[in-house]
Amino acid sequence: MAHFADRLLERMRARNTPLCVGLDPRWESLPEAIRKRHGCDSLAGVAAAYEQFCSRVLELLAPLVAVVKPQAAFFEACGPAGFAALQRLLAQARELGLLTILDAKRNDIASTATAYADAAFGGTTVEGRTHAVWAADALTINPYLGRDAVEPFLMRARQAEAGLFILVRTSNAGAGLFQDLLVQSPDGQTRPLYQQVALAVADWNRENLGACGLGDVGAVAGATYPAELARLRELLPEVVFLVPGFGAQGGTVEDIRPAFRPDGSGVVVNSSRGVLFPFAPTASDWESRIVTATRQTIAALAPLFGKS
Amino acid sequence: MAHFADRLLERMRARNTPLCVGLDPRWESLPEAIRKRHGCDSLAGVAAAYEQFCSRVLELLAPLVAVVKPQAAFFEACGPAGFAALQRLLAQARELGLLTILDAKRNDIASTATAYADAAFGGTTVEGRTHAVWAADALTINPYLGRDAVEPFLMRARQAEAGLFILVRTSNAGAGLFQDLLVQSPDGQTRPLYQQVALAVADWNRENLGACGLGDVGAVAGATYPAELARLRELLPEVVFLVPGFGAQGGTVEDIRPAFRPDGSGVVVNSSRGVLFPFAPTASDWESRIVTATRQTIAALAPLFGKS
Repeated sequence: MAHFADRLLERMRARNTPLCVGLDPRWESLPEAIRKRHGCDSLAGVAAAYEQFCSRVLELLAPLVAVVKPQAAFFEACGPAGFAALQRLLAQARELGLLTILDAKRNDIASTATAYADAAFGGTTVEGRTHAVWAADALTINPYLGRDAVEPFLMRARQAEAGLFILVRTSNAGAGLFQDLLVQSPDGQTRPLYQQVALAVADWNRENLGACGLGDVGAVAGATYPAELARLRELLPEVVFLVPGFGAQGGTVEDIRPAFRPDGSGVVVNSSRGVLFPFAPTASDWESRIVTATRQTIAALAPLFGKS
Repeated sequence: MAHFADRLLERMRARNTPLCVGLDPRWESLPEAIRKRHGCDSLAGVAAAYEQFCSRVLELLAPLVAVVKPQAAFFEACGPAGFAALQRLLAQARELGLLTILDAKRNDIASTATAYADAAFGGTTVEGRTHAVWAADALTINPYLGRDAVEPFLMRARQAEAGLFILVRTSNAGAGLFQDLLVQSPDGQTRPLYQQVALAVADWNRENLGACGLGDVGAVAGATYPAELARLRELLPEVVFLVPGFGAQGGTVEDIRPAFRPDGSGVVVNSSRGVLFPFAPTASDWESRIVTATRQTIAALAPLFGKS
């Protein structure tokens, strides 16, 4: 194993793209053949359909991209069967050489945060034996609870040479309600809350930089806010950005350009629906459509990536 | 069914206590007999031990308290078997007449938030059929993502006549890093971020008040910050507070007094470790110790509750 940022950069360079594909399965968008095979009489059937679809997607994507981002909510909505499916998909992604960002936006305090972090990374240790749960390469977390809530995630991520992505500026239309409020910082400056969170991310990230110069505490910053992305890159030169909102949510290549470092590194661009569901459920050629959509997105992002 | 706040108040009055017991199972604290029976060779064994212990706790607590608060993190740390155990415990709590607050601190945007909210409350609907997942009476959520991230939770909670508890001022020592920052509100005032979040909670809560005058959007406010509790009660006269941090985390009866409304209503006081684990793992009388600790905590809280 190596430092998270070094592994990430090495894999993205090997695939020559910053594209990460979000695994956000939705029943109504799945290929009809998969829906029919499993049925939806129970959530176990829905979970099995999600798993079959996502499993095939992982096989299709592994030669093309470096990173996938499973969305925990859609698996949670299928109950325990959904979580079992998510667990197997994370294991399969690892076996295929894909890095995994578990998008679960977890957060809590003290030993509760440690329990989430154990699940996400190294595993749960009971009487000296450690049992893997998700074993993801990175996890999204929420900063609202403060440093001592982030601390257990930092500790466990570092023990596993994994990464964190902290919500800084989210991609939704109403993100600004709290994130854009001007705050009086203890340093005497006034700045929007999301920039104050960014400065905390900068501090946490600086504690553990990889050989590539990037750290293991990333920032989630939406593609839908280009001006904010530019400001965040100024504040966070050593931080990896996870940029959701590209494609279906409206973010364009020009919108996300300011997120990249001058050498074209430092960004993981997520696309979910645009790559995952570029077909009608009745289409029999859904596999080739996913590959085509992935290749097109990679081509669109190529001018931004890896010009070092 | 009735409005969440009315159900909550009616049940708390029937039990004559605001005490809520947090279900935070920890392997090292479980009775030795339960640990030995299930073993920890796998997380399925750990989950089974958690379930047996918590199930017995629910039976012991049902005649004494109105509300329990399972902590999702400890079940997540056991993987899919943990979630299945949590699902059965939530169902058992309902059957025993206990209200359930699922402490999962979830949050996301748009359809992803809807997926979490479906899981928490009414269930996941696929092709017109709805399948229950957690079916909790209330869920804790994080406000950082803004109104449109809270909206799907509000909608689903209201469809199920359930409640939300939004993190406002958490009980951890480092809570103030962001929550205490002074923000410039669009209303021209300057106030700490947690109070700005509180004002949003007030607005959301006012949209749906019960017959008792309290609403369905509660605030999480830690027992460890009495001055903040007093200020929050001024700002939020119609809001139910979920007050963690009482007991083992250091909050005293005097600390939480300011959270109560003049009539002694409006607060759910959570105690986890203090009530759940008042015994050494080798103690054979752990059941009676839990009952005694619960009765003592109820007695300690009695002067604060229900003086209407």
